[in-house]
Amino acid sequence: MLDQADPALHPRSRSLFHPLTMPVPTTNLTVYTLSGQDPEGLFPCILGHEAGAIVESIGEGVTSVKPGMYVIPCYTPQCQEAGCIYCQSPKTNLCPKIRGTQGKGVMPDGTSRFSTMDGRHIYHFMGCSTFAEYTVVAEISCAVVSDKAPLDKVCLFGCGVSTGLGAVLKTCALEEGATVAVFGLGAVGLAVVQAAKMRKARRIIAIDMNEKKFDMARQLGATDCLNPSTFGEKPIQTVVVEMTTWGVDYSFDATGNTEVMRAALECAHRGWGVSCVIGVAASGKVIQTRPFQLITGRTWKGTAFGGWKSRVDVPMLVQQYLGGELPIDHYVTHEYDGVDKINDAIHALHEGNCLRAVVSYATP
Amino acid sequence: MLDQADPALHPRSRSLFHPLTMPVPTTNLTVYTLSGQDPEGLFPCILGHEAGAIVESIGEGVTSVKPGMYVIPCYTPQCQEAGCIYCQSPKTNLCPKIRGTQGKGVMPDGTSRFSTMDGRHIYHFMGCSTFAEYTVVAEISCAVVSDKAPLDKVCLFGCGVSTGLGAVLKTCALEEGATVAVFGLGAVGLAVVQAAKMRKARRIIAIDMNEKKFDMARQLGATDCLNPSTFGEKPIQTVVVEMTTWGVDYSFDATGNTEVMRAALECAHRGWGVSCVIGVAASGKVIQTRPFQLITGRTWKGTAFGGWKSRVDVPMLVQQYLGGELPIDHYVTHEYDGVDKINDAIHALHEGNCLRAVVSYATP
Repeated sequence: MLDQADPALHPRSRSLFHPLTMPVPTTNLTVYTLSGQDPEGLFPCILGHEAGAIVESIGEGVTSVKPGMYVIPCYTPQCQEAGCIYCQSPKTNLCPKIRGTQGKGVMPDGTSRFSTMDGRHIYHFMGCSTFAEYTVVAEISCAVVSDKAPLDKVCLFGCGVSTGLGAVLKTCALEEGATVAVFGLGAVGLAVVQAAKMRKARRIIAIDMNEKKFDMARQLGATDCLNPSTFGEKPIQTVVVEMTTWGVDYSFDATGNTEVMRAALECAHRGWGVSCVIGVAASGKVIQTRPFQLITGRTWKGTAFGGWKSRVDVPMLVQQYLGGELPIDHYVTHEYDGVDKINDAIHALHEGNCLRAVVSYATP
Repeated sequence: MLDQADPALHPRSRSLFHPLTMPVPTTNLTVYTLSGQDPEGLFPCILGHEAGAIVESIGEGVTSVKPGMYVIPCYTPQCQEAGCIYCQSPKTNLCPKIRGTQGKGVMPDGTSRFSTMDGRHIYHFMGCSTFAEYTVVAEISCAVVSDKAPLDKVCLFGCGVSTGLGAVLKTCALEEGATVAVFGLGAVGLAVVQAAKMRKARRIIAIDMNEKKFDMARQLGATDCLNPSTFGEKPIQTVVVEMTTWGVDYSFDATGNTEVMRAALECAHRGWGVSCVIGVAASGKVIQTRPFQLITGRTWKGTAFGGWKSRVDVPMLVQQYLGGELPIDHYVTHEYDGVDKINDAIHALHEGNCLRAVVSYATP
């Protein structure tokens, strides 16, 4: 069920969804909240924020989505209103229209649409709550995608893979011939490698403590794979600077570790290197560096959902996937059938060989 | 005397300079080194790095500068060689050609050209050493400017004022209508205000603990002046965000204080705010923030010498000054005559009412 953002219009309803979810331990937001480390986590809630789904029904006033449509629920909405400075700006995707209620685990009208059989309140999660056979999502949070798209694949565009791709293609707008370093080779970091290759990066240095990730990184375009633990006491940023003379044009953190974020910044090229934070850090953690790093020309930035405007850009990514320009099937390493398999999928993620585990709940 | 960078070619020589220097306490690099806090400071040395001068003689192989020319020695050189990736890039001004020897307090050939009467070695400082009636500077460090320029004014383009102007005009390339916050209203911060006004900033918030600076800030274009100590426990970044709804499009630190650098970042606009570090921090200090600040769209960068390429851009700034488009006389609050007045000028700077004190050594 899709609700408009305007709280006055919302009858309670439900939607038949076909959510296919795929969390990964290092940076996956659902797993982070599940761990209890998210100080803003609200329980009990229905987790899950990466999915593909089919609309079952719509609420009063919903106009842009109809039953039967294929959608990807997005935790970053796009209201597209003339008065929204964020939606009107080409510089950002961070539409704040419903962030207040979304952060409180409720719909824009302030209510939850979930409860236990005996009537106890259950919170929403990130405006998505896709670990469920049915969920309720705001209209402005739904990216309508081609109904030719296989939902068990394009569900990946719901968060991590889109984020990694967008960090390169959108937030940093990588130029052809650039040099790149990527820290963390989960699905997000691998999507950075893939996007850097798409942009014809000259050199792509892929970095992870888990060398099992290197094969996939190389397949996607990494030219060098480094395990930081094999360089003794030498900081990894020093290793990267030495092997590139001055550092890399662009570096990306896809780990969520604030020490790694610093390393990523400090291996960026003197004079013009840009370092982009993608991973979400644990609560209370700070990033730090000497200001000299910035004075001498490095830029520190970040990305949320890869800078993609959800309702406009996600359908475009799906089209590129359908056209064969943007393969993503390789991120699906595990598949499960049935909503009761969600815990199995999360266990798989923690074992280190999983990029994305897709769980199918129902086939309409 | 102007030397080429190539160490093989340099006979020892001297130049008649007419250096006019103007340090300011908060961010002036000479005063920082003088204080003993600069871990890379080498003593004994001849300090001074902001000056205008007339060339007395040139070394063998020097072609682009001739005796009698008006020059501004620049601590950032510009070699302009085809093989210099920095000089060839439009993204940076940080030509590294002579940074190794400059950092060691010597000329590109590894020698010092200064000594005491009894023959003891004296180090160079930042490639300039302008607290002297004669100095020796590398050819690639000299910006040749119009000989119609009053050296006792355009000497200001040697560092701080250029840096503040360039932070806005070059490093951040401010758009018309932007909102701006500036922390620290010494000459650097005031130059930020001036440049923001030139770029038709919609709102310019000028911030300093010393309210005596506010009159000049308003004259240069500040729309709001804030003293952080008047807001009780409320952090200044919160004050700025509240008065602008979401923060400012661009913020600048011109204090060198790392806590202020954090405040400047955190008052930048969610989604697209850019914060630029200009001030030089004390040794060992780090900047820090929560990575969430970057993830939600803020960019942290820095500038050195305002991003200006010294030999190309400084003459252009001087032309703009001569054309009346870029007034800078208002930064000269104190004037002294004679090289023996340098200590008086530095005392004046520490009293808080001085922007730049210009000391004239000799009139050719």
